[in-house]
Amino acid sequence: MNFTIRAATREDCRDISRMIMELAVYVKRPDQVKISHEELERDGFCQNPFFECLVAEVPEEHKSEEGFTVVGYALYFYTYSTWKGPTVYLEDLYVMPEFRGNGIGSSLLSKVAEVAKKKQCVRLQLSLFDWNTPARDFYAAKGAQDLTVTEGWHFIRFDGQSLDNLANEAHSSSAEA
Amino acid sequence: MNFTIRAATREDCRDISRMIMELAVYVKRPDQVKISHEELERDGFCQNPFFECLVAEVPEEHKSEEGFTVVGYALYFYTYSTWKGPTVYLEDLYVMPEFRGNGIGSSLLSKVAEVAKKKQCVRLQLSLFDWNTPARDFYAAKGAQDLTVTEGWHFIRFDGQSLDNLANEAHSSSAEA
Repeated sequence: MNFTIRAATREDCRDISRMIMELAVYVKRPDQVKISHEELERDGFCQNPFFECLVAEVPEEHKSEEGFTVVGYALYFYTYSTWKGPTVYLEDLYVMPEFRGNGIGSSLLSKVAEVAKKKQCVRLQLSLFDWNTPARDFYAAKGAQDLTVTEGWHFIRFDGQSLDNLANEAHSSSAEA
Repeated sequence: MNFTIRAATREDCRDISRMIMELAVYVKRPDQVKISHEELERDGFCQNPFFECLVAEVPEEHKSEEGFTVVGYALYFYTYSTWKGPTVYLEDLYVMPEFRGNGIGSSLLSKVAEVAKKKQCVRLQLSLFDWNTPARDFYAAKGAQDLTVTEGWHFIRFDGQSLDNLANEAHSSSAEA
C-alpha cells in the first residue's frame, strides 16, 4: 500500500484530534482527553509551537471505511537533558488498526529519528504503559532501551489539588526559612 | 537562613553547570555529563530557549565553604500532553548538601509550580531513580503520584547506534511498503 509521511498542517488537526481519541480508547483512557482540534491548532501552529507533528496519508482509493485518508500520526517535541542537551520526545505514535502491517508506524518513527539527528539531538525518548506489550515489543525490536527496567527510572506527576497546593506555597512563603 | 529564588541569567551558567555535575555525582552518573556552561548559555539564553531555570541564592555572609552563593537550581521546560495540553517538566531540582534543611528545595519546587499555573499547565512532571528514596519521599510528601507504580508507565530511549539505525531507515525507505 502506498502512503506518504509529511509534516502536519493546521488543516490536519481534526484528523489528529480524532486519532488522539482513538489512541486514548486503545490505552483505556478515553475520559482523559481534554484537548480539542481547536487547541491543537492553537498550540501546534503558532509562533512558538508546543509540538511538531507528522502524519501518514494514503491515496483516496485506499481511504478508510469511514472515508479518512490521514491514517496515522507522530507527535513530538523538544526536551532538554542537562547531561546531553536537546532531546526529542515522542508523545504519540499511532496508526489506525486497518492500516497496520504496512510499515507506516516504522516510517513515522524513522522520520522522527531523522528529525532528531538533523536537530543534533542524541536521544529520542517516549513512554509506554507496561501492559502495552505490542508497543513495547515494537520499540524493543527497533533497539530501544526500557530505562524503567534497566535503570529504575520512575515517572512522577503533580496535578489537580497537589499542583494547586504547591503553587499556593509559593504565594504564602517569604522565601525565607 | 535567608535566601532568594530568582530567574537564572546567562551569568549563572557556570554555577548551574557546577551543580549539574554535583547532582550527576549524587546519582552515580558523573561520566554522563557532556554539557558545558557554554552549551547551557547557548541553549537556555537564546531566542527560543530549550529550558528555563530558577536559582537559589544566599547572601555573601552565608556563602558555601568554597565561596559559592548560588546554592541550588530548578531547571524545567514545557512539554505537551495530547490529552491535557501544555505541561511543565522539571528536569533537575538540586540544593547543595550544606544548604539542605532550610526549605530551599521546597521553595524552588513551589516556584516552578507557580510558573506552571501561570502558564495554564495542569501538570508538573519529573522522573527519578527508584533507589533515590530521599527524593521519592520528598515529592510524595508534597502530594505527587508515582505513575510508574500506580499506572505502570515505563521510560523508553533510543540513543547512540539505535537512534542512528532508525534515522538511516528514513533515508533508505521509499515511504512505500
